[in-house]
Amino acid sequence: MTKIHELDTPVVLIDLDRVEANLKRAQDFADANGVKLRPHIKTHKLPRLAKRQMELGAIGITCQKIGEAEVMVEAGITDIFLPYNILGEPKLKRLLALARRASIKVTADSTITINGYSKTFASSGITLSVLVECDTGGGRVGVQRPEDALALAQRIAASEGLRFGGLMTYPAKGMVAQANAWLEQATVLLKAAGLTPEIVSTGGTPDLWRSSENHAATEYRPGTYIYLDRSQVREGVGSFDDCALTVLATVVSRPTDNRAVLDTGSKALTSDTLGLEGFGRIIEYPDAAIVSLSEEHGVVDLTHSAARPEVGEMVRIIPNHVCPVTNLFDEVTFVRGNDVLETVPVGARGKVA
Amino acid sequence: MTKIHELDTPVVLIDLDRVEANLKRAQDFADANGVKLRPHIKTHKLPRLAKRQMELGAIGITCQKIGEAEVMVEAGITDIFLPYNILGEPKLKRLLALARRASIKVTADSTITINGYSKTFASSGITLSVLVECDTGGGRVGVQRPEDALALAQRIAASEGLRFGGLMTYPAKGMVAQANAWLEQATVLLKAAGLTPEIVSTGGTPDLWRSSENHAATEYRPGTYIYLDRSQVREGVGSFDDCALTVLATVVSRPTDNRAVLDTGSKALTSDTLGLEGFGRIIEYPDAAIVSLSEEHGVVDLTHSAARPEVGEMVRIIPNHVCPVTNLFDEVTFVRGNDVLETVPVGARGKVA
Repeated sequence: MTKIHELDTPVVLIDLDRVEANLKRAQDFADANGVKLRPHIKTHKLPRLAKRQMELGAIGITCQKIGEAEVMVEAGITDIFLPYNILGEPKLKRLLALARRASIKVTADSTITINGYSKTFASSGITLSVLVECDTGGGRVGVQRPEDALALAQRIAASEGLRFGGLMTYPAKGMVAQANAWLEQATVLLKAAGLTPEIVSTGGTPDLWRSSENHAATEYRPGTYIYLDRSQVREGVGSFDDCALTVLATVVSRPTDNRAVLDTGSKALTSDTLGLEGFGRIIEYPDAAIVSLSEEHGVVDLTHSAARPEVGEMVRIIPNHVCPVTNLFDEVTFVRGNDVLETVPVGARGKVA
Repeated sequence: MTKIHELDTPVVLIDLDRVEANLKRAQDFADANGVKLRPHIKTHKLPRLAKRQMELGAIGITCQKIGEAEVMVEAGITDIFLPYNILGEPKLKRLLALARRASIKVTADSTITINGYSKTFASSGITLSVLVECDTGGGRVGVQRPEDALALAQRIAASEGLRFGGLMTYPAKGMVAQANAWLEQATVLLKAAGLTPEIVSTGGTPDLWRSSENHAATEYRPGTYIYLDRSQVREGVGSFDDCALTVLATVVSRPTDNRAVLDTGSKALTSDTLGLEGFGRIIEYPDAAIVSLSEEHGVVDLTHSAARPEVGEMVRIIPNHVCPVTNLFDEVTFVRGNDVLETVPVGARGKVA
């Protein structure tokens, strides 16, 4: 059997034993806490792993783009949440085509978005389930107040071709309690108006383990939990030994005693820092720091590392943020420990629209 | 003819009139200053534009990865510089295969790299031209002192299957004079040893316009000059009206008076800041600031913008750094002004190895 160090670099390695353990741990936790999982596939973008998530108990999947959902429906997945304001005729046509093949739910935070959905679905024979996106402190997309959520829910309920599906939020980091209060208040208003939300969807990986604080939610959309990464380890979600995705790199230069250069730059690791120092953790040299990236080079400071790699040596890197890494590679390689199993295309990579 | 605002977003638009003007301006300048251009194709990754660069007078092209060079050779380009330490059997085999089809030059900054080249080419019947990479202040890859450059040049010259091709550097920003002094000193040493460098190659776009300061160089490897971007405008290389690449985006949310959200996040614009504030310039709203990106959302602060976009409106963004943007999109759309000409695959996208 081929061993990982026989591969050409850079290459993304996915350890299937760790994937399985991460998925099971989250599903068991969710089951024990009465939470439904609807994993976000943006982390892996692989139909095969989406199906595995469903086999283990996920009630459906979450995609961010229509192009991702198209890949997943093509692969046989039939229950998809698209938490996005979908606008413009080309996308609305594709949304309708998808909704003829699978159960699709979407979000809206404006009447313009709702009107587009209604115009598209009114005479289609299909009723589109639309959730209201709520800004519970994240400062991104979503209505600002529970009263606004009610107003949009009423608008959806009154729109031809649509039904009010519930509430959705992407909670700000460290704001689980605040998000929960927001969603509870909105739920009270909605119930009083006869619009009990069927789904209250929140995310992501760190908050999953705090679901006891977030009892307003009925569904979670964790993504990164399948692979974990350096930022999730910082958040305490798991350990480095749980990280299932690594980038295998080669040391291409040792220009000075204190410097090594890897063949992994921003085209492999991305420039995402997520507030961390450096651009990833080198498993074999944990005291070394990837201090800067250009597109094709990663510069490593060895000052605090007693052990130092040779030119030509291979190392494995845990990225700061795995999701955009899988979006950079046309394919990833499944492994178990040091054994290479299979290289597979990243089916939903690069689906920007 | 289709107009750009009929396209689905996000989409990368390449204005061919601006491309042509940018290429001609640089080639005219190079010709007037007796400098040879060997453009770096990492910016566009498109065989068609590489060929146009050569038609206008470039002596060859530069690629950073073997996978990029393979695409370009397949498209008919026959003179390629790969300024990289190429290591490991899989890549060395591909390098030899490429060298049987085209004129290929590479770099080395260690004896380990040189030994790999020599072992691969010794009995191939092909002589590989190897330049010594010099760290003239950039702190990335390269030998540290002119004396080290001489030692490696002698090693190359003494290695079976190889010839010493010259010197190469990626000059640090604002260090043109220092890089020049370094290269001149090395050239003196090499000449004295009977190893006059045939090529002294430097880069990139900003330094091209300072070539009178950099008289040690015989070749330039500018990349970004073909499209320009927000960081190059900051460097004074051109104006926003010269920028040939824009990302067309849709405003998907206006959650507050002061906030708009675009459908372009880090999966479209990358997290690269290059020291700039924000993540790109919105042409239609130059006083608005793209203050944060998640993967699929770009959050815009409208506080200082009197004009404010509606939900569903399209805007064009000049990215901070165009090179990694073209690496994110499977295809780009050629335009002239508002007219859509053609959508083409980004042939050398995602060639990580």
